[in-house]
Amino acid sequence: MKRPLILISNDDGYQAKGINTLIKMVRTLGDILVCAPDGPRSGQACAFSATIPLTLTQQHKEEGVEVWSCNGTPVDCVKMALANLCPNKPDIIIGGINHGDNASVNTHYSGTMGVVMEGCMKYIPSVAYSLCDYRADADFEPLQPYIQNITKHVLENGLPVGVCLNVNFPLLGGRWKVEGGEENTYKGVRICRMGKGSWYNETTRFHHPRGYDYWWMVGHYHNDEPEATDTDRWALDNGYVAITPTTIDVTAYEAMETLKPLTLLPQPSTLHPSPSTLNPSPSTL
Amino acid sequence: MKRPLILISNDDGYQAKGINTLIKMVRTLGDILVCAPDGPRSGQACAFSATIPLTLTQQHKEEGVEVWSCNGTPVDCVKMALANLCPNKPDIIIGGINHGDNASVNTHYSGTMGVVMEGCMKYIPSVAYSLCDYRADADFEPLQPYIQNITKHVLENGLPVGVCLNVNFPLLGGRWKVEGGEENTYKGVRICRMGKGSWYNETTRFHHPRGYDYWWMVGHYHNDEPEATDTDRWALDNGYVAITPTTIDVTAYEAMETLKPLTLLPQPSTLHPSPSTLNPSPSTL
Repeated sequence: MKRPLILISNDDGYQAKGINTLIKMVRTLGDILVCAPDGPRSGQACAFSATIPLTLTQQHKEEGVEVWSCNGTPVDCVKMALANLCPNKPDIIIGGINHGDNASVNTHYSGTMGVVMEGCMKYIPSVAYSLCDYRADADFEPLQPYIQNITKHVLENGLPVGVCLNVNFPLLGGRWKVEGGEENTYKGVRICRMGKGSWYNETTRFHHPRGYDYWWMVGHYHNDEPEATDTDRWALDNGYVAITPTTIDVTAYEAMETLKPLTLLPQPSTLHPSPSTLNPSPSTL
Repeated sequence: MKRPLILISNDDGYQAKGINTLIKMVRTLGDILVCAPDGPRSGQACAFSATIPLTLTQQHKEEGVEVWSCNGTPVDCVKMALANLCPNKPDIIIGGINHGDNASVNTHYSGTMGVVMEGCMKYIPSVAYSLCDYRADADFEPLQPYIQNITKHVLENGLPVGVCLNVNFPLLGGRWKVEGGEENTYKGVRICRMGKGSWYNETTRFHHPRGYDYWWMVGHYHNDEPEATDTDRWALDNGYVAITPTTIDVTAYEAMETLKPLTLLPQPSTLHPSPSTLNPSPSTL
């Protein structure tokens, strides 16, 4: 039987501990092709490179594991791999393991999510893994059984079309010691919705010795619905692994009815006078 | 009465014809603050700059219109403007007018949509305008009454929380001549859902004189549901202005039930043996 092809990328770069740990965790599950940025690309969302020429560099090759770096964004890496490196359509695309969480609104900024959104848009089952630990030497060990089980499950069962998974792990510590447990451990796995939250104090000003101001993007996160217990944020804050099914179709269906008046606003009949534009019957659904 | 504050940005840069036309179209509706990239940033999605210092440059100031450029992404521009330029919270954020459409999956790559997603995440009513014409000298004139009416309507009525608008205009030409009409004109306005589609042949290889390969991102778009008449893509292909309400909450709610088996996968009890992890009752919702 042909081994599954697993395409892996991330936004921390091909040298990050997170992606190298991920390779080790899933390499028994199939053949691994890595195409990841040649350096950190955090916060790159679904950006792709419209104006710079892209290059690929082979970094490593052994039986069952091939690693390439690309000078572009996480999404570029996936597009380049699919078009130029993969011998066939991958059976799964995995992003991560990200150093830092991608829950709540971070979903929209995350390059790791960019990887799996791109995979999902190419109709390939795609899963992002992130750990709430920004440190370069973060300990990913406790994630192994979860990542192996989830990856295996998705390889075997696929995912609904247009849906990818955003999997976030809280940082283990004394805090998540389960009652009666000998060790610190996660309390379980929850299927969550994306929590509502806001970044504030996002820019910090500095003065350059040459006389101008510049700003670093930083910011603090605020949970805008701390009472809700069905969000990814709540799960992470309470010791659970959070799986948020994420959709490619971002239509706000429930708002469509409310917006119907927009189709009835005065039509530019004075600009283009004609019987049919004065009687805009085809303008509503 | 205080005039509304209108924050404008785009992804084509502050010098693009689209944004300068937009300023003229809406300047009677309020005070205009522009903070836009200092050059083209197409395809930047919701990317923000985590690792480069950001700068602001005032380009223009007159009564009621202030224009700043920023060296970052479209999302950086919004964050920088909100944190450092706006005298108060804007009443509306507008992105565009983009040179080129942002319908279907382009929603996810669009820097113009990045602008309004960011506005929406900051709880400010936000609208993106795009024209299906990539040319630098595109004719935006026919859009004026639509953009004025939609902007005015949103200023007066707001938008549902967590929902922004993605407004796309087809390119006028002989094709959209309405029956009985004297002029080429749009057939009306439709509230649409985001169409499903795919980019293919996305990379084109070239050989550098120094002996290595490089690729340009290009690609062709394929409508994956050509039969559907309720999509933004159909509206544009048939002469209608397409308004797609777009949600910040990207949870795939309809997939949550299907994914419940993921919460029941073997827990890592062998790693962390304890009665409570062997009996993972709190792991389901």
